[in-house]
Formats: sequence, C-alpha cells, structure tokens
Amino acid sequence: MSGVAIYKFTTAHPGDVAGLGKLPASVKPEDLVAVVGKTEGNGCVNDYTRMLSSVVWDPHLKPSGGISVFSGGTEGVLSPHVSLIVKEPEYLADDGSKLYSEGLIAKVGETRDFEPWEMGTSIHAKVTAETIKALITELEIEPEDVHMVLVKCPLLTTAKVVASAKPCITTDTYKSMGYSRLATAVGIAYALGEIADEAAIDAALESYGEEGWSSRASCSSGAELENNHIVILATSKKASNPYRALHGYMADAIDLKVLLDLTSQIPAGAERVQIFAKAEPSTDGVIRGNRHTMMTDSDIQGTRHARAAVGGLISGVWGSTDVYVSGGAEGQGPMGGGSVCVVYKV
Amino acid sequence: MSGVAIYKFTTAHPGDVAGLGKLPASVKPEDLVAVVGKTEGNGCVNDYTRMLSSVVWDPHLKPSGGISVFSGGTEGVLSPHVSLIVKEPEYLADDGSKLYSEGLIAKVGETRDFEPWEMGTSIHAKVTAETIKALITELEIEPEDVHMVLVKCPLLTTAKVVASAKPCITTDTYKSMGYSRLATAVGIAYALGEIADEAAIDAALESYGEEGWSSRASCSSGAELENNHIVILATSKKASNPYRALHGYMADAIDLKVLLDLTSQIPAGAERVQIFAKAEPSTDGVIRGNRHTMMTDSDIQGTRHARAAVGGLISGVWGSTDVYVSGGAEGQGPMGGGSVCVVYKV
Amino acid sequence: MSGVAIYKFTTAHPGDVAGLGKLPASVKPEDLVAVVGKTEGNGCVNDYTRMLSSVVWDPHLKPSGGISVFSGGTEGVLSPHVSLIVKEPEYLADDGSKLYSEGLIAKVGETRDFEPWEMGTSIHAKVTAETIKALITELEIEPEDVHMVLVKCPLLTTAKVVASAKPCITTDTYKSMGYSRLATAVGIAYALGEIADEAAIDAALESYGEEGWSSRASCSSGAELENNHIVILATSKKASNPYRALHGYMADAIDLKVLLDLTSQIPAGAERVQIFAKAEPSTDGVIRGNRHTMMTDSDIQGTRHARAAVGGLISGVWGSTDVYVSGGAEGQGPMGGGSVCVVYKV
Amino acid sequence: MSGVAIYKFTTAHPGDVAGLGKLPASVKPEDLVAVVGKTEGNGCVNDYTRMLSSVVWDPHLKPSGGISVFSGGTEGVLSPHVSLIVKEPEYLADDGSKLYSEGLIAKVGETRDFEPWEMGTSIHAKVTAETIKALITELEIEPEDVHMVLVKCPLLTTAKVVASAKPCITTDTYKSMGYSRLATAVGIAYALGEIADEAAIDAALESYGEEGWSSRASCSSGAELENNHIVILATSKKASNPYRALHGYMADAIDLKVLLDLTSQIPAGAERVQIFAKAEPSTDGVIRGNRHTMMTDSDIQGTRHARAAVGGLISGVWGSTDVYVSGGAEGQGPMGGGSVCVVYKV
Repeated sequence: MSGVAIYKFTTAHPGDVAGLGKLPASVKPEDLVAVVGKTEGNGCVNDYTRMLSSVVWDPHLKPSGGISVFSGGTEGVLSPHVSLIVKEPEYLADDGSKLYSEGLIAKVGETRDFEPWEMGTSIHAKVTAETIKALITELEIEPEDVHMVLVKCPLLTTAKVVASAKPCITTDTYKSMGYSRLATAVGIAYALGEIADEAAIDAALESYGEEGWSSRASCSSGAELENNHIVILATSKKASNPYRALHGYMADAIDLKVLLDLTSQIPAGAERVQIFAKAEPSTDGVIRGNRHTMMTDSDIQGTRHARAAVGGLISGVWGSTDVYVSGGAEGQGPMGGGSVCVVYKV
Repeated sequence: MSGVAIYKFTTAHPGDVAGLGKLPASVKPEDLVAVVGKTEGNGCVNDYTRMLSSVVWDPHLKPSGGISVFSGGTEGVLSPHVSLIVKEPEYLADDGSKLYSEGLIAKVGETRDFEPWEMGTSIHAKVTAETIKALITELEIEPEDVHMVLVKCPLLTTAKVVASAKPCITTDTYKSMGYSRLATAVGIAYALGEIADEAAIDAALESYGEEGWSSRASCSSGAELENNHIVILATSKKASNPYRALHGYMADAIDLKVLLDLTSQIPAGAERVQIFAKAEPSTDGVIRGNRHTMMTDSDIQGTRHARAAVGGLISGVWGSTDVYVSGGAEGQGPMGGGSVCVVYKV
Repeated sequence: MSGVAIYKFTTAHPGDVAGLGKLPASVKPEDLVAVVGKTEGNGCVNDYTRMLSSVVWDPHLKPSGGISVFSGGTEGVLSPHVSLIVKEPEYLADDGSKLYSEGLIAKVGETRDFEPWEMGTSIHAKVTAETIKALITELEIEPEDVHMVLVKCPLLTTAKVVASAKPCITTDTYKSMGYSRLATAVGIAYALGEIADEAAIDAALESYGEEGWSSRASCSSGAELENNHIVILATSKKASNPYRALHGYMADAIDLKVLLDLTSQIPAGAERVQIFAKAEPSTDGVIRGNRHTMMTDSDIQGTRHARAAVGGLISGVWGSTDVYVSGGAEGQGPMGGGSVCVVYKV
Repeated sequence: MSGVAIYKFTTAHPGDVAGLGKLPASVKPEDLVAVVGKTEGNGCVNDYTRMLSSVVWDPHLKPSGGISVFSGGTEGVLSPHVSLIVKEPEYLADDGSKLYSEGLIAKVGETRDFEPWEMGTSIHAKVTAETIKALITELEIEPEDVHMVLVKCPLLTTAKVVASAKPCITTDTYKSMGYSRLATAVGIAYALGEIADEAAIDAALESYGEEGWSSRASCSSGAELENNHIVILATSKKASNPYRALHGYMADAIDLKVLLDLTSQIPAGAERVQIFAKAEPSTDGVIRGNRHTMMTDSDIQGTRHARAAVGGLISGVWGSTDVYVSGGAEGQGPMGGGSVCVVYKV
C-alpha cells in the first residue's frame, strides 16, 4: 500500500532541513516519499532558492527514492515551509481489519529529461501523461480518485535556448516557465480524463489552456531540473488512515466562495493539514470587469502579484500562512483562476 | 450641511480623469469635495503616479477648494480607481421633513506645511490633531461620529534631508514614509479621543504605534506635498441621505473574521459603495506564529507585499477589486493589522 | 534656417520645468524646438514618469509646435535631466557674412497615429521613414549630414491588445516596447540609407535588427503616445553656429574604445554639451564570451541593467552623469551595442 | 611560505563548482586557500545565492581549511564567476635561488561568532582588527604590504533582532548589512594603520566611514554566516612567483581616471588576472553636483544600482566582465567611491 501522512514545518531559510528532526520517531529515512515546499525566492527564472532547497533535501530523499517539488515565491503573508509526505502504516484493528474505510495515498515518479525544444510542446504533455497513467495504475486507483498532481517542471535558460538543436517554443526565459507549466498541466488533464484525446491536447496548448485544463494540476517551473518530478495525491478505499482530501478550483483570483465551500466540507473537529492552490493573473487584464495591473508591471512579475493576492485570500480562509500557493496556473484551472486541494485529518 | 455621496470609477492610467464625465449631470464642479484614489505606482518614495494624478486632478478641485488623496500601489488584484466624494443635497420629503434619519457627511482641510525636521515628530502629530478637531467642530459632530480620517502626508527626500536646518527623524527616505504616517495617525487618535493626552502622543510615537493607535486613521505618504491633506468621513443625525458607514480593524493581515463581521452588518439589498483599509507587515516578522518574508525581501518593499496580500483578502470579501487598500499602517490599527471602514447605500 | 543650441538642466523630479526659467533671456517661448529628457522611472511599460513629464512640458511646447521625447530610466549614476533644443540665431559678422562655416540644426515631426496591430511592423517602419525623409528634405541636407534621430514611439498595453481589430505583433506589453523601437530604428536606417530597400526592411525586422540597423537611431517607447515623435539632429554648411556633433556606435556594452575615440575628436577647449547613447543586453547572453544575467533576472528588466551599466561607463568617459543613455537598442547599433552621438560647442 | 596563484572561472549558476575540474592537474585539494566569487543574487538580505554557493563549495574547502567569500549581485554586464586562490610553489632556479624577487601571498582566517547586538559596533571592528593583525604577523609582512583584505561579514535578520539579548544597532535588515561592512572596514583600517587608534575607530563608526576608512578593504555581508571570513592578499619579498598586485581607490562612482592610472601601471605583456572593486551610492545624493536616484528608488536597492554602474565602468576599463565588483563601500574608500585592487601576472 501507499498510505501516507503529511507533516508540515516552517523553514528558517531555504537551506533549512530542521523539519526532518521533528518527524515522529517512528518515521524512518526510507519512509520519506516527497518534500513539497515553498521557498522564499521570486519564483521566476533566477530563483535559486529552489536549487538550494533541492541541494540540501535531495540527500535525505536518496534512501527512499523520493522526490522534491519546491515552488518559489512566498509573497505577501505566505510563510516558507515544507510538507513532508511520509509513508503511513495502515491503521488496523487488533483483528487485522481496517480501522478506516479509506485513506490518503501518494506516489512519485519522474519523466525522462526533456530537450530544450521539447519543453512546452505536446511532446512534453504526452510524456507527462504517460508517466502519470503508469503511476495511477501502480496505485490501483481510478483517475477520479486523484485529488492533486503536483509537478516540478523545467524551464528554458538563455544558455539552453542558444544551445538547442531545434528552435524552442520561446526565447523568453520567463515565458518558458509558463509554457512548461501549461504543457505539464495539459498532460495531467489528459491522464486524468479531463480532456478527451490527443487532438484536445493540441487545442489546449494552442489556446494557452483556455480550451482544456485540469482542476487537479499544480505545476511549478524551475531551473534546477530537466525533467518532470511528479507527486500524485489520491484517496483509496483500499487504504486505511485518517487523512482525507477535497479538490475544486477558483474561478478567478478572488473566488472566496469556492474556498468557503471547500472548507465548510471539512468535518467539525477535523485537523486542517494543508491547502494546495494555484494562482495567476487573468490574461485579459481584468477581474470581474475591473482592470488589474499585474501584467503591465515591469517591476514585479505577474506571478508574484498573483501569489501575493491569492495567498492573502487563502491564508485568511485557512487561518494560517504556511499554505502552498504556487504562481502560474496555465491549464491548472480556468483562465485567471486555479486549482485547489485541501487535506485534513479526521 | 456637508452631506456627501461617493462615486467610484476605475482609471485607465494615473492621468485619467474620465470619471468626471461620468458623474450625474446634477453634480456641479463646485460640488467636488475630494478625490481619494489608488494609483498604480510602487506606493513608495519614487512613486510619481501620485504626482501625476495630483497634477491632472487638482485643477478640477480648484472651484470647490477640494483636496486629493492618492495612495500609490495596486499590487496583486487591486484595480486603480478614484472615489469622488461629492456634495449630496439633503433628501427631503415634499413637506421639507428629512427622508432619512441620518446621512454620510465629509469635510476636508489642510495643515500648514511641515519643515523636514518636523516630519514624523510630535509636532507633526499635534498640528494634525488641531486641524482635525477644528474640522469636527465645523461638522457639528462628536469624535465618535467619525468613521475614517483619510490623510495624505509628506515624506523626506534625500534633497530635503540634506537641506534641513535641523536633524531629521531619519535619513532613510523609505522609512520617513512610515514616520510620517505614524505621526499623522497618532494625531488622528488624539483628535478622536482614542489616546488620552499629549503624554500618550509621545508614548505612541516612541513605541511606533504599539502603545497608541487609531482604528479610524488611514494615512498615505507621498513626495508631492509638504503638508497634510485631510478628509473626514462621518455620519450625522442632522444629515439626510442613504449613505452609511461602519468601521473596525483587522487584528492581523489575515483577519477574515472582522471583514465578514463588518460586511454581515450591511443590510440585505444595500449597495456596497467602498471599503477603505490599511495593511502592513507585522514588525515582529510573524503572523499567527509563522514567519513572513515581507521585511527581509530586498526586491519588493514590505508595504507592497502587505497591500497585495490584504488586497487579495479584501477583494475576495468585497467581491470586487476596486477597493481602497493602502500600505503602511503604523498607528492605524494594531501592529500588523489595520483600520477598516465600509461605506454602503441603503 | 533651423540652427539650434542645446541647453541642459537637471530636474528635481519628473514634474520639474524649472529649467525653462534658466534659459537665456533672449530665448522666446516660440523658440523651443524640442525637449529631450531622462526621467527617473523604470523605463518600461508602467513608467508614468514619462507621462508626467509630457503633461507638464507639453503646454510649453504649444507656442512653437515643438515636441517632447522622454526616455525613462536613470539607473545607477544617471541623473534625471532635460536637454532643451532651442532655435539659435545665425552667427553673422557685421557685414552679414557667416561667422562659422557650419552649424548644428534640428527639426521635429510626427507620424500619424498607429493602430495597435501596426506597431512594430513594416508599416510602422515605412511610415516613420517617410516622415524622416520629408524632414530631411525640409532641412535641405543629405542623409549623411544627420547625426542622430531621436524618436519617442508607442507601445502596446493589455487594453490595446485586447481592443485591437487585428492580431498584434505580441501580447507581451514589455516585449512590445522592443518591437516598436526596432521598427522605428529600421525606418530610420532606411531613411538614412543605412539599409537599401524595402526588402531590407523586412530582413532587418525578421532578424530583430541583426541584419540591418542604424548607428544614428535612438528610439524610446512609452505608453503616453500613439504615434512617433521625431527629432532630427544634423549639421549643415548653410548654418552658422558653434555647435558640432559626432556619431559612432558601441560594438558591445563595454566598448570603452569607441567612446574614447569619439571624445578624443572633440577639440581641446571645446565645451562638452551632451552625449546620446543607446544600451541593451546582448541577446545571446554573453559579452566577450562571458555570461551576463540581464535576461534571466526576473526582478530587474534587462533594459534597466543595460542602462545602468552603459550609463556608468559613459558617465565615466564624459565626466558627468547628466547624460542621455536610453535602454533597448534594437536596430540602433549592432546587437548588444548601441548608437552614440556627442554634441559639443567650439 | 604562502605564495598563491589566482585562477578565475565563470559559473553557469550559483551551484556550479565545475571550475574545480579546470584547475591545473598539479593543484591538490589541500592547496585551495580561498574561493572569492560573485553570485547572481540581489546581494541584499534575502540573497540565498551566496548560501547556495557556500553549501556547494565548503566541502571542497574542508581539506585545506580554506574559506569562501561570496558577494551577491552581478547587475548590468557583470558575469558570475569564482576566483580560486590556490597555493603556488615557489619559483626556484635549479640552484634553489628565487626566480622572482617577490610574489603574491595570501592567508585566510575567521573571527569568533558575533552576537546580534555586537554586529556593526566597535566590538565588531576591534575583533576583526585583532584577527587581521595576527594574520599579518603570521605572513611575516608589514601592513603596507597588504593590497586587499576581502571579508565576508554577517547581517541581522528579523529573527536575530527579535531574539537578541540586547538592542541591535538597527532593526532594519538591509541597513544592518551596511553597518556590518562599515565595522569590518574600520577594523581593517585600524589593523593596516590607516586609522590611528581606538578613538579613531569610534569616530569612523560615528561618521559612517567619512572620518576614517580603508583603501584596501572589501567587505560583503551575508545571511549565511555569524562571523567574519577574512582573506588577505599581499605581496612579499620573501615569495617568488609572477603574480603582482596594485591598489588604489575611486574617489567617486565615475572615477575613470584612477582606473586608467592603475591599469597603465600594468607592464606591457602582463596578463590581467583580476580586479577587485567596491561601489556605493554617495549618501549626499549627488555625483559631481548632479542628483542621482539610487537612494530614492524603492524598486531597486542602492547597492544594486551602484554595482551595475561601477561594474559597467570597470568592465570597460578591464576589457572583460568577470570582474569582482561588490556593493556597499561603507568605510572602504571615501564616501561615494570605493577601494580598488588589481592583480596581474608578469
């Protein structure tokens, strides 16, 4: 089984692995399935806080073959932190029967490395979809059991663009982050059945996610890798543990209603574990009819603005600031909105 | 009487005065009491969007002797806009009796110019308090009838510091904005009876607002003036119009509860006119126990982070993004929180 | 005749027109040919310091039909300033003969407004070329007499892109600034005979200026206009005044040699009046074989980096910091370098 | 002996240690005396590129007991790189006599950790001076033989300020970087005899370096350490190698003259190895009488502006961009200028 628990720790800086020492004594090094963290960089091309976190965490993930997904950017109230996803034994009664009728499960995987000219294309999407489908099969679940697919995907640097054997999808390094997230999200949508076929992949890519997206995708780009790192969070009737998840999507960046709807479904007395959300500036430059300035601000990138604003709203709803809000929601929810997943413990 | 209405218009850029043409035909040039706007600059020392807005709006305020208060910074979802506060005739029945038992009123004033070495000091606070007390007297109301005092206050530039006859409170131009807002807010607190006496002014200034603050102050600093521009919003039983106001304060930057409490007091069917709020990074570096990075980010100033985050939360609650969220809440609400005022029309 | 002098004044802020009062008493309002200034904004999409300067200067240009060209961005040591180009009477001896065998001349003009979908295209280039050719004819000079064509050109905002009747060359507002400068520069190159024909216009545009550029173009984009504002600086044997000009180009961003070569041609005892230069990050990411980070920095735009660095070098050579260094040299000098023009007074 | 060579390598990113593999085969791990590098962060409080570089380089410095000094910020044309200072055997003739009459030498050391309330104070300066004096004694040289003392010094974070047992010199994390550099530089000045006594230390600190500074100090602050890391570069008649050094100081940020003077002293045919320079915005807001905007720009920190501008000038003079230009020259050269050291190989 792949039953998991999630432990969350704030970090003092991107090189801080002190959370490891705060895990329950029963957790062994080989139980560390994944580290999903927010680091305090700009979340853009030259954000080396993600690389720093990878460098310090990856040795601790060696024993288990686990992976790390670091998303840069804790603008506004957001608090840098890590969520450690660790193997959780099945909760069984003395007679060996399951104590819970279901439980949270997780599995990680990696795609092959991508060539610079593949990043952001349908190849990127399809290879991602194949890896996810294989993981779902291994988990013995259906696509509808998946609550969130968290992915760390690559970006193009000036050096990669110059060295590429074929033309790349863009020469703009910041824009390449969006294309990489989009292709990854479209791959997730295809793997989860949210879009129908390979033609729909092309349509989704061409429309920049407007004509095909996933409400269960959370993709983050970084310079510190060349392939996709994938973490699947799902629930399974075969598992037995007290962790539960819900998912939905914000229709725009100020969609308080869906957040209150989701949190109202958490049973009274349950412990709020974590909320994963995506945020982005709407590409038409308006929110509910009013102009925003996120895309015409040459001092602060649009993804930073979006993380700050949505992070403020989500922190207000969640009641704490160590929440996972990631910027750049291309294909991860409707245009201008973003996917949301909440995890709680009954 | 000083009964007023508030009309709100989004702007295409900081030089946009098109909203003037959208006022009801009955509004005459001499009815324009004040323009309170959000412009899309950085809200900090070198934010010349406020100066641009002042340059284009001030000629329109000449006929009425009105003033302008522009607050820079529409980070995240916030939408640049102006609130035009205009004289509203008393609503009377055919028999001359009042149609409403109360109404929104407003009055504007200016202090004398401040010397560079006075800015941010108790002199700054006391002169501000005197002007406000005089305005309250003219309005024939009590301090408790006031819902919000909006002030535009000066800052120190390198040139002013170098030219000053006496030492200034700081040589750091960005920090001078905070000191100016603080002294202004403490002056408001004193005028409204929120702090007791002149000794309390000193205590409030020395504690940087922790030991004395106003829940009805909203202060914004700018390089475009040398004195304080003051707008008082209040309600009076002597007035008769359908505009109403409520005030409160956020205890921290994610205080969703107070926002839901305030908005729940707006009667069903009433029209939401505007919400005025202040935001700031908590100076102890934490929010509900979790570290934030607003004060250690050398790329984006803390006030920008705070506006973006609180702007996201308030826009979510208000349901639109053309809200007035201003950064730097020194003495304007408790440390890390900020004052809030909502205006609606029954 | 169109003989001109150039007077330079530093500004206290972008709304400062105090320089007007420092002109010689003999200069009349109708003598003001052009204002070419550097303002202290970010020089990018949301730089409203240019708009503020235009708003305050344009009334003073009404009497003469003059134009303004404001270039945003005074990063590093650069000092905000304005160069006032004013009509200068011919210097004649008592017998009416010319005191000087040549002199500096200038002429200004404007193209028609451009549609959003025209900006950055060959239409933009050709219309610009036509206007410049007409101005050269009016000046009764040859293209080789021209030392610098300073142009203020438009950019695309999110609002313009959304409203455009046809697809625009880009939806990225920051990138639109580069396309606008490029098309304008290519138009200048064509008008000055630096590129051969209309086919060369297309080749220059397609290669982003690598296969066709002007060493006498200086283009600056801004949101404050919809057409091209053009200032031509030239020397003419028909004029008689003590102002002279030289031009050249930096081959890369650290080309000290060409700057020392140009300044060594200024006669001993001559007064240095102004230097106009363009700067940009090389698009291949390297300078003389070493990687630069200007295009992978998501906190500071590449044009800001380039202005700061080239501004430091040019200020060192010129010996003062009130020099005109403008960012974004697409088609204005070789890739990674930029055009340079020096003006002095014998 | 402590004879050294300097090898310089550009880096692909702050985690890049590939330069190690490009050292001559004769260099052994225990020969690595120090790594002095420029990383591509913002050079300010939240610059974790320095921490990343430390994390990846420090294991390689273990065998030799060497230290690392990383200075963040490669604004403008500056190229991220590392200078590896490695032990160089004495150049001897077959008869054992020295081939060169002198040579470059280096030694590294560390102070004790500093308490938060000590940082930036005279304690900080004096402890630094003691460590440097001891190193000079060990090198068997006189203070005047020292060409440059490169130091990495700590800064205050919000967490340190809050936790400090006594009041800190500032609560502003960015400002703490300047105080730390200043105290370190004053300590260097004292150790090198550039200021006279302990009273002069206090005068230098109180005047923020105006009344006491070192032309041979280069200090860089970072969050990645709690003590001072010190590298001394000197020349000694006892050594025998072809490396030579010169030092001087820029009187202001555009002091081209001193740079041309220093480089003109490099013998024809000698190889330019490295130039180390400090840069800062002048605190009076002007350069040679003209206003600069480095200290009133709330989008880009002043040290970033200064590095970009001075980096452009120095790269132009040096002819390449992999030069060491560090921001924040408090006490390291006169106000607004900075120390300079050039190393070449005959």
